[in-house]
Amino acid sequence: MHLFPLIVVGIFSVSPAVAQWPIPRNITRGNEIVKLDPNFAVLLGNIDASTLPDLNIAKEDTRTRVLRDNLQRLARSADLAVDNQQLQNASTIYNLTLYLNPGTSNLSDISSVVQQPLDTWDESYSLTISGESGQAPSFIVANTTLGLLRGLTTFEQLWYTSNDLIYALDTPINIEDSPAYPYRGFMLDTSRNFIPVQDINRTLAGMSMAKLNVFHWHIVDSQSFPLQLPDGGFADLSEKGAYSIYETYNASEVQEITSYAASLGIQVMVEIDIPGHSAAIAQSHPEHIACNEASPWQSYANEPPAGQLRFAVNDTANFTTALLGQVAKLFPHAMISTGGDEINLDCYANDTQTQEVLASSGQSIDEALKHFLLHTHEVLQMITPRTVVWQDVVLNHSVGLSTNKTLVMVWDGVHGALDATSQGYQIIHAPSDYFYLDCGAGSWVADGSSNDWRSWCDPFKTWQKAYSFNPTANMTPNQAKLVLGGEQLLWTEQTDTNNLDSVIWPRAAVAAEIFWTGDTFPDGSNRTAPENLDGTLARLHALRYRMVQRGLKATPLQPHWCAINPGNCSIVA
Amino acid sequence: MHLFPLIVVGIFSVSPAVAQWPIPRNITRGNEIVKLDPNFAVLLGNIDASTLPDLNIAKEDTRTRVLRDNLQRLARSADLAVDNQQLQNASTIYNLTLYLNPGTSNLSDISSVVQQPLDTWDESYSLTISGESGQAPSFIVANTTLGLLRGLTTFEQLWYTSNDLIYALDTPINIEDSPAYPYRGFMLDTSRNFIPVQDINRTLAGMSMAKLNVFHWHIVDSQSFPLQLPDGGFADLSEKGAYSIYETYNASEVQEITSYAASLGIQVMVEIDIPGHSAAIAQSHPEHIACNEASPWQSYANEPPAGQLRFAVNDTANFTTALLGQVAKLFPHAMISTGGDEINLDCYANDTQTQEVLASSGQSIDEALKHFLLHTHEVLQMITPRTVVWQDVVLNHSVGLSTNKTLVMVWDGVHGALDATSQGYQIIHAPSDYFYLDCGAGSWVADGSSNDWRSWCDPFKTWQKAYSFNPTANMTPNQAKLVLGGEQLLWTEQTDTNNLDSVIWPRAAVAAEIFWTGDTFPDGSNRTAPENLDGTLARLHALRYRMVQRGLKATPLQPHWCAINPGNCSIVA
Repeated sequence: MHLFPLIVVGIFSVSPAVAQWPIPRNITRGNEIVKLDPNFAVLLGNIDASTLPDLNIAKEDTRTRVLRDNLQRLARSADLAVDNQQLQNASTIYNLTLYLNPGTSNLSDISSVVQQPLDTWDESYSLTISGESGQAPSFIVANTTLGLLRGLTTFEQLWYTSNDLIYALDTPINIEDSPAYPYRGFMLDTSRNFIPVQDINRTLAGMSMAKLNVFHWHIVDSQSFPLQLPDGGFADLSEKGAYSIYETYNASEVQEITSYAASLGIQVMVEIDIPGHSAAIAQSHPEHIACNEASPWQSYANEPPAGQLRFAVNDTANFTTALLGQVAKLFPHAMISTGGDEINLDCYANDTQTQEVLASSGQSIDEALKHFLLHTHEVLQMITPRTVVWQDVVLNHSVGLSTNKTLVMVWDGVHGALDATSQGYQIIHAPSDYFYLDCGAGSWVADGSSNDWRSWCDPFKTWQKAYSFNPTANMTPNQAKLVLGGEQLLWTEQTDTNNLDSVIWPRAAVAAEIFWTGDTFPDGSNRTAPENLDGTLARLHALRYRMVQRGLKATPLQPHWCAINPGNCSIVA
Repeated sequence: MHLFPLIVVGIFSVSPAVAQWPIPRNITRGNEIVKLDPNFAVLLGNIDASTLPDLNIAKEDTRTRVLRDNLQRLARSADLAVDNQQLQNASTIYNLTLYLNPGTSNLSDISSVVQQPLDTWDESYSLTISGESGQAPSFIVANTTLGLLRGLTTFEQLWYTSNDLIYALDTPINIEDSPAYPYRGFMLDTSRNFIPVQDINRTLAGMSMAKLNVFHWHIVDSQSFPLQLPDGGFADLSEKGAYSIYETYNASEVQEITSYAASLGIQVMVEIDIPGHSAAIAQSHPEHIACNEASPWQSYANEPPAGQLRFAVNDTANFTTALLGQVAKLFPHAMISTGGDEINLDCYANDTQTQEVLASSGQSIDEALKHFLLHTHEVLQMITPRTVVWQDVVLNHSVGLSTNKTLVMVWDGVHGALDATSQGYQIIHAPSDYFYLDCGAGSWVADGSSNDWRSWCDPFKTWQKAYSFNPTANMTPNQAKLVLGGEQLLWTEQTDTNNLDSVIWPRAAVAAEIFWTGDTFPDGSNRTAPENLDGTLARLHALRYRMVQRGLKATPLQPHWCAINPGNCSIVA
């Protein structure tokens, strides 16, 4: 009468050895098991690393991590027992050797590559792990030091620990890999609530585990101005506009963050959001801010406090370009964002200074805004190769910026990406309905009860929802070519150091796979095919548990039982 | 032309000194400021504390905390400057003296009080803080050591730090306080994901800050069995059913937790959920579990893996009562829950052992279930004063348990509380649509895409939503008398040590105010009146920031700007 088997074996169809996130674009595997020698080392082949400190540190970090991750494979104990049995006769990997392709002309270290515009980066690599049979060598080959770094990151994800043995499954392995999109980012807001330097560095470490390559730093906003600008007369911005002296980033901390990011193959894109989202400037420079803390705030801003730059006023325009120049000095990387979202023109309707300028110049407020934004970007684009704006600038205010030098970040609405690409802009996907990590935790506006206290972008964006995003939906081939990539974003109204990691990870790694792997898995199947779901989740678990081993407080996506019983917590199971 | 003032002053109408959570039921205040002497001490008045170690520790803990909390008052810098100015001429509080009312007959320490049934507890106290004028003493008076502890907790919430001075506002203060409901709990599931001992202890510390007094420990479930039962032949339950040996609670750890809880005025109510939610027992005792890991799981359980006790089988019934007896030995407190939620009778339809028993006895499965539950509770109620069940037992399965000895926990649906109280049961509110802290983080079932990957109890239960709960809605006065209190709950499908604090705090403190303060504020206004909202949020911020100072990683409810500008982040502001 037993209609049910006592033990139902999971229908998990993806090999357990594929725990890489993002999944490499090409991978071939055997069915052997190898263990890692306790004195394992990463060697340099045809590379003189004496002038490559980033690469030297990266290879030593990889050695340390594979020896210390101490990650148990996520499987039932019976499966782990099989691993242990097979390990008794496994052969040993003693080292991994790094090679640069002989044709490599420009031997730059990782940080140097990262200073350049993203479209010049070569992140490709190949990785070969010898199998049980082999005294055959294991190696990574790439065109750049950055490519070698990406290969090392993949290598680190091969290893599990059991009974003090470190081992990899399904060897020999050969991987040929490169990203589908050049921009794979993560955005962090450090104004609504302050985020300490060590948290940002830990976030960068997490990003590098998923091969994310742009840290979009929304560093200031209306709530606080934590960026210290020591020169040019801007010191008072943070002195008066930060929550406290302890909640600021000084120049050496910015340098520490940008350098560390660069060594991990991550470009830092700083954003100074103008002319909206700038009320914090009023703490030190009230003469430049209109409708500061005006009431009711919702008439003048999307969030309290209201307050926007008096962009029509010459002194304020000059102040702004000088401010951006000082910011650019601190951030050596190749992109700077000027924000430009949610500009509220009602803020200026009763602003004396603005109205006087408009009256004397005969300009409308829209014309003045266009003039300001065009001028600001012209000046900034003389300093930095690329500027970035939120879609509002080009779509809502029809400011025609250089399509060669300006990237458009698309956050709102299904037509934003189509409209911006149809105008010839390169875009970065940041869709609020897929990628906003802060959504779903309820309304932080205390009396936001009209919608059962839901957040404006409710519901919570699950990893599954984010993963279902299609970067080229409804696009022509020419439009699709303008998609640079995308990023998940964390606005910190309800996040600070206390819950940072768990809000970000592992969900923010979803964009990493969408934009590295692209639409197609190495077996040719569609990334979002239902039959791939359990395997995808298993790989995301593996990344998450490895993050935890490295000190990132990533949220569990499921009961641990589900993580070690892949495929058994789906409805179709 | 300036229609907007440059600075809008918050409309915050609640005195900044009222930062207590839960707000005391009676409070009178002056308008003076006092500072705390650096050698501040808590003294004993008419109490010989040589036999009261809990009270001794509590008073020293209070001393340490007020000296070390180092919490800045949540206000604009201009307001803090006023504090600093006033502090120059403030008088000093040198000590706080504890008194027991002369009529106190039974001088029991806090832990001893906590072993008794909740309805016998006396948590009332009065607290007097002298003002600036006074060499007048400050003191707490109570009928019990537990009442003194509650008074100490209130005292701790009076103090802020500025420039190394510790001060209180709006003195002199007189508080007369006692809880509206005896049961003010918090539930933690430690089976879906394991929660380490130190995390539980830290959670207890957080509970005590809000005067919560029952830790409902949902210690085991189908996913894992972390409770070590050393005696009676039950050791293999955790040896085989826990995630690992490192993810268990041994007897001394249970003792550590229950003792620490008791010293904080918290009773531990352990729950062994039967006969459903028990698949983990199959790892060691498959003979007692029907439909173990049966597929598809959703036909036999609300969550994977399926598996329920074969309650109709005599051996299994005996095994269960013996198991509960062993559990009761480890948990000395006055309540034990046997769970009883989500029993799935389809699990037994094809179970050979169950069907054989039913056939030979002539019982239906419903009759067998009633017999099992009645018997289990009869046995257990000989050991422990109160047993607790989920509403399913008495409402779905109509098992008539003793209304004197059985408490019913109501989690599902608007009619549960009305139905259970109409049957004469005392109830504990645990409404999923208000109090489930796990809701809103999306579906952890990987392919739960039919509802946009929302969790079954979406949306997220904000503090505002929880706070809007009315414990006696639609009840007759006689029904209302049967409401013992309530608790917020954390099911840990998507929570473990990495995000525990931030999921729990500060939201789980909402129940503390609902069930301590009751429906009416000390000024006579309704607790949920819209005009109280900003003040309530300000007090919850104060609790949350104080928790952070004490090492609890509580989530920020708003941008820090809103916390220090009370009233300015509401729509009506």
